[in-house]
Amino acid sequence: MRYELYYWPTIQGRGEFIRLALEEAAADYIDVVRQPESEGGGVSAMFDFLTGDDIEHPPFAPPILKAGKRVIAQTSVILMFLGARHKLAPTGDNGREWTHQLQLTTDDFLVEAHDVHHPLAKSFYYEDQRDEALRRTENFKSERLPKFLGYMERVLSQNPSSRKHLVGGRLTYVDLSLFQIIEGLRYAFPNTMTRVEPNYPLTLALHARVAERPRIRAYTESEQRIPFNTHGIFRYYEELDD
Amino acid sequence: MRYELYYWPTIQGRGEFIRLALEEAAADYIDVVRQPESEGGGVSAMFDFLTGDDIEHPPFAPPILKAGKRVIAQTSVILMFLGARHKLAPTGDNGREWTHQLQLTTDDFLVEAHDVHHPLAKSFYYEDQRDEALRRTENFKSERLPKFLGYMERVLSQNPSSRKHLVGGRLTYVDLSLFQIIEGLRYAFPNTMTRVEPNYPLTLALHARVAERPRIRAYTESEQRIPFNTHGIFRYYEELDD
Repeated sequence: MRYELYYWPTIQGRGEFIRLALEEAAADYIDVVRQPESEGGGVSAMFDFLTGDDIEHPPFAPPILKAGKRVIAQTSVILMFLGARHKLAPTGDNGREWTHQLQLTTDDFLVEAHDVHHPLAKSFYYEDQRDEALRRTENFKSERLPKFLGYMERVLSQNPSSRKHLVGGRLTYVDLSLFQIIEGLRYAFPNTMTRVEPNYPLTLALHARVAERPRIRAYTESEQRIPFNTHGIFRYYEELDD
Repeated sequence: MRYELYYWPTIQGRGEFIRLALEEAAADYIDVVRQPESEGGGVSAMFDFLTGDDIEHPPFAPPILKAGKRVIAQTSVILMFLGARHKLAPTGDNGREWTHQLQLTTDDFLVEAHDVHHPLAKSFYYEDQRDEALRRTENFKSERLPKFLGYMERVLSQNPSSRKHLVGGRLTYVDLSLFQIIEGLRYAFPNTMTRVEPNYPLTLALHARVAERPRIRAYTESEQRIPFNTHGIFRYYEELDD
């Protein structure tokens, strides 16, 4: 069975967490919206899920994964599903839920990383909320970023099995997700990250190890990896990174 | 086994979604932080989980549920756990994940309902971000609220088993959560809700049926139910509800 991923075609966004898990698992998948319209691709393929009235489990928003007849949305639910099928999560209830819990905390942080540049509304231009973005970013850098990275560092340091992974003694999808968060933060806040990274040695070591995994490295160095840009969740604006 | 719930003692907040599920299940639980310090209660009992270095699965934030030796955080993970144990969710993987997916969408909406009054930072006073709150609220009422309630209405109308429940043919925890969202919206935006409620008849009918369930009614009419107030997630400010 070939998985079908539906996500915005020009940004990494939330879809990237799914892509990283699929790539690490060497799973057979197609990034549908990035295919030509003539071959069933394009955004209309995605909108059919968002508006169709004959879908058993209608999604609220992308990313959406189609696995056979199943249609699954919400990044963390898709990852829980893939984690179980591709050995990217523990098999017991306890470990499976803990991995998922960490992913949800990552998802929460992602909303905050987005809202620094869009504190008032997704649908307003950045330029129309720049002053507010400056105020929110200041708080993000002084309080929220250290709180989140400090938490992940704490989880790594307290993992009884290994300080090299967030959960247990081997790679899970939430290790990949933390890698991606660091990638995004480095793009959006290069100066800030240069300053604060030494505070989180276990987190950064995890990032470096994930970056060197053969399949992840092959993927991130390929044309398939959409470059970060100022349409995505993580955005670089010089004035927000002092 | 008696469950232990740890949450802020003076607001409904995210803890209320857990309380409603526990009440509907008639589960044995104690709301620990609301007990006297002399009996092991108070916020220090909660902070021990947030700062302790000997916790296998350290929580990032409350609500936290202790179930025997297990410590679980993230509202939706706690509900998934309780749903499986108290027949408040389907038993199969597919239905269980779908219920959880809807809960996550509810959680996402809750963040937006909070950020209308705190668009710049949780740690700034409302009075210092009132102008920004006005702008964000306008967008929330015109775009986000209709998008979320319209989605839930769509899920109800497309449920092949019953238009009386979000999932399958019987009550799940996400029905309780949607009830709570309507409760919060009616408190925070009474005029707005009076205007828009006729657009969501299935959602409002579900709210009314949940309100009349004997255990929910006994709970919401009791002293145990903390009244909504301007410290919680849903807040009433006259200027935000025109």
